[in-house]
Amino acid sequence: MQSIFSSPNPVLFGSGTSGQTGEKLRELGCTKVLVVFDKGIKAAGIADRILDIIEASGIETVCFDSVLADPPDWSVEEAGALGIREGVDGVVGLGGGSSLDTAKAAKLLLTNPPPISQYFGREGVKTVESKPLVLIPTTAGTGSETTPGGVITDTKNNIKTNIAGTGCKVDLGIVDPELTLKLPPSITASTGMDALCHAVESYTSQRANSFCELTARQGIKLVGKYLEVAYRDGSNLEAREGMMLAATLGGISMSGPLCHLAHDIGKVLGAKFHIPHGIGCAFCLPQVLEVIAPAVPDKVRYVAECFGAGIPDNAGAEEIGRSACEAIKELMGRIELPNLRSFGVTRQELLAVVPEGVKAQQDGLVKLFGQGTSPVPATIELVSEIISRAYDEN
Amino acid sequence: MQSIFSSPNPVLFGSGTSGQTGEKLRELGCTKVLVVFDKGIKAAGIADRILDIIEASGIETVCFDSVLADPPDWSVEEAGALGIREGVDGVVGLGGGSSLDTAKAAKLLLTNPPPISQYFGREGVKTVESKPLVLIPTTAGTGSETTPGGVITDTKNNIKTNIAGTGCKVDLGIVDPELTLKLPPSITASTGMDALCHAVESYTSQRANSFCELTARQGIKLVGKYLEVAYRDGSNLEAREGMMLAATLGGISMSGPLCHLAHDIGKVLGAKFHIPHGIGCAFCLPQVLEVIAPAVPDKVRYVAECFGAGIPDNAGAEEIGRSACEAIKELMGRIELPNLRSFGVTRQELLAVVPEGVKAQQDGLVKLFGQGTSPVPATIELVSEIISRAYDEN
Repeated sequence: MQSIFSSPNPVLFGSGTSGQTGEKLRELGCTKVLVVFDKGIKAAGIADRILDIIEASGIETVCFDSVLADPPDWSVEEAGALGIREGVDGVVGLGGGSSLDTAKAAKLLLTNPPPISQYFGREGVKTVESKPLVLIPTTAGTGSETTPGGVITDTKNNIKTNIAGTGCKVDLGIVDPELTLKLPPSITASTGMDALCHAVESYTSQRANSFCELTARQGIKLVGKYLEVAYRDGSNLEAREGMMLAATLGGISMSGPLCHLAHDIGKVLGAKFHIPHGIGCAFCLPQVLEVIAPAVPDKVRYVAECFGAGIPDNAGAEEIGRSACEAIKELMGRIELPNLRSFGVTRQELLAVVPEGVKAQQDGLVKLFGQGTSPVPATIELVSEIISRAYDEN
Repeated sequence: MQSIFSSPNPVLFGSGTSGQTGEKLRELGCTKVLVVFDKGIKAAGIADRILDIIEASGIETVCFDSVLADPPDWSVEEAGALGIREGVDGVVGLGGGSSLDTAKAAKLLLTNPPPISQYFGREGVKTVESKPLVLIPTTAGTGSETTPGGVITDTKNNIKTNIAGTGCKVDLGIVDPELTLKLPPSITASTGMDALCHAVESYTSQRANSFCELTARQGIKLVGKYLEVAYRDGSNLEAREGMMLAATLGGISMSGPLCHLAHDIGKVLGAKFHIPHGIGCAFCLPQVLEVIAPAVPDKVRYVAECFGAGIPDNAGAEEIGRSACEAIKELMGRIELPNLRSFGVTRQELLAVVPEGVKAQQDGLVKLFGQGTSPVPATIELVSEIISRAYDEN
């Protein structure tokens, strides 16, 4: 058994830690930082709170306040250009995955020439490290603050792809559960499912290793314990802390083993239909658990049991798979996760993503549909069957 | 609750992985590397095996084959000077903690001027990152391949101190349990106790956090399951893999929360009497568990139960502490760990280390005796009592 224990970035975790943002930026030598966020974070008052904290440490701020979901290449290039124009010596990302990944790209572009597309999907590409990057998640989902790369939409090919490498290295994640206290229930639900997918998929990845298994199991257990509680009572700090830790552990567990079927399908849906990332990824999770059960029955059993499934000791892989599928479907019902029909996507449009994804993969634009990570062979037929069943059943 | 999730270095873990050393060095861009090891590794044939693997990838090697235990400042400076003289573009450390830490210092000195003493004990000191460093442990103990710093003996002050920072950053750890298959039982025992101390002390550190607790608990459980097996049958690969994973997890868990009483006492013993590190650190572990039980009873109970102690549910902290103390003493008996009397150290000599350690701490040379990490106040009286009892009882 071989495994890569990937290096999570340093993370400062705990309620109230975002109050140290200015101090930490000063320790990193910053005097003027680009702060990257979106309109929602501005409206929630979180951006102003963090800007005040940074400025109170005598650090100037420049705002890029127009992050877009599934950040398009041209948008992250605008963020990078603003940073260069303003001569910043640091970047702060504040928000969900889109804001954190835009901040990663902006840091990269401070010292590596545009276009961003030349750094897509190629972990081997050499980029120069630039100024410090601090990431502050405001959802318990993305885990981007712990991972070595970012997800950007390649608008030429209409696909979500990756940037990675030293050029977008995260110097510090500041993970403050208090920032999630006012998240609306629907965002708590969808981002929480993203965290769950990270943990479940890396745990069951072909590349899973002992370190990933340890962090993923704890992440899955925490989602089982706290997602519904946080969904029903957003002000429950214990549940918010539990979910934030689950998201952090999910990010750590996927760094290396990566995700597979559910996530890769979710990414295609994100690029094509702008389905929120967590919903897109969760969409097929019940069926994915069912089809992978014969390959990793004990792991699927663990997941199912964390969500309350009672499975007899002598159950076979099929029964375990069915129980896991049902347990996750029930969870998705309880947290009222929208299905794809509610986004107006037809079955036909949905199934059309499969050949498009396959082509993108063949063109080397992305690793898709669990190639090299899914515990069962990720054939076109299997992916189509999973999507089709998820559309009908979930 | 706040916590720093420290960043373990990337680690390639698994039986047979050392066969990839040449390939990995090539990926890191190396053409000529300094390989750092000691006479024992040479005699065991491991050095030649790894040198062959590196050279088969077309990479030149230069050997520094005279690593000393508790590596003295002047010795690591020799290693660094050899690397500069030979114009190497990478460093490989191969062996136990002393070899890995010598390699860290040698890397640091490739691009940061000597003497090494100017980088001692000051995590804030800025050092320039130089050429890639790959560490290959041959014992299941040190965990140095996962930690951000190294332990060097300051011969001017006769104390073990630290180097840290980007200048000695580890680019890759290659952790191959097969390399430990021929370790003699006494080394298996002492290095295994080092791994246990890392996990137990960071788990019970004041600075322990959720991430440390997760990795430490698994490390402790694995030592409980596999140390005696590996000691009795060195050729048992499952036990060797379990212990290697425990050592890796112990290294990860202590990165940030650090160790406390047992380790800090062990470091003083190492510098003063050249007691092997694992034996020095384990020396007081039973009594340390007993004295910290009132502060962290549930954690001490967990440790005791991993070593077979049966503790009633309603037991108080004192009873838990006594059980843990006994359980670890029994383990040390079963793996025939030598006590300090067998090294010819007298009680008086031993107790004299306390004021010396306190002075070194006051002089700012080291953090000692659990300052800021011990879960109970680490007074001079308490440290003396622990040492005294350990000398009589263990």
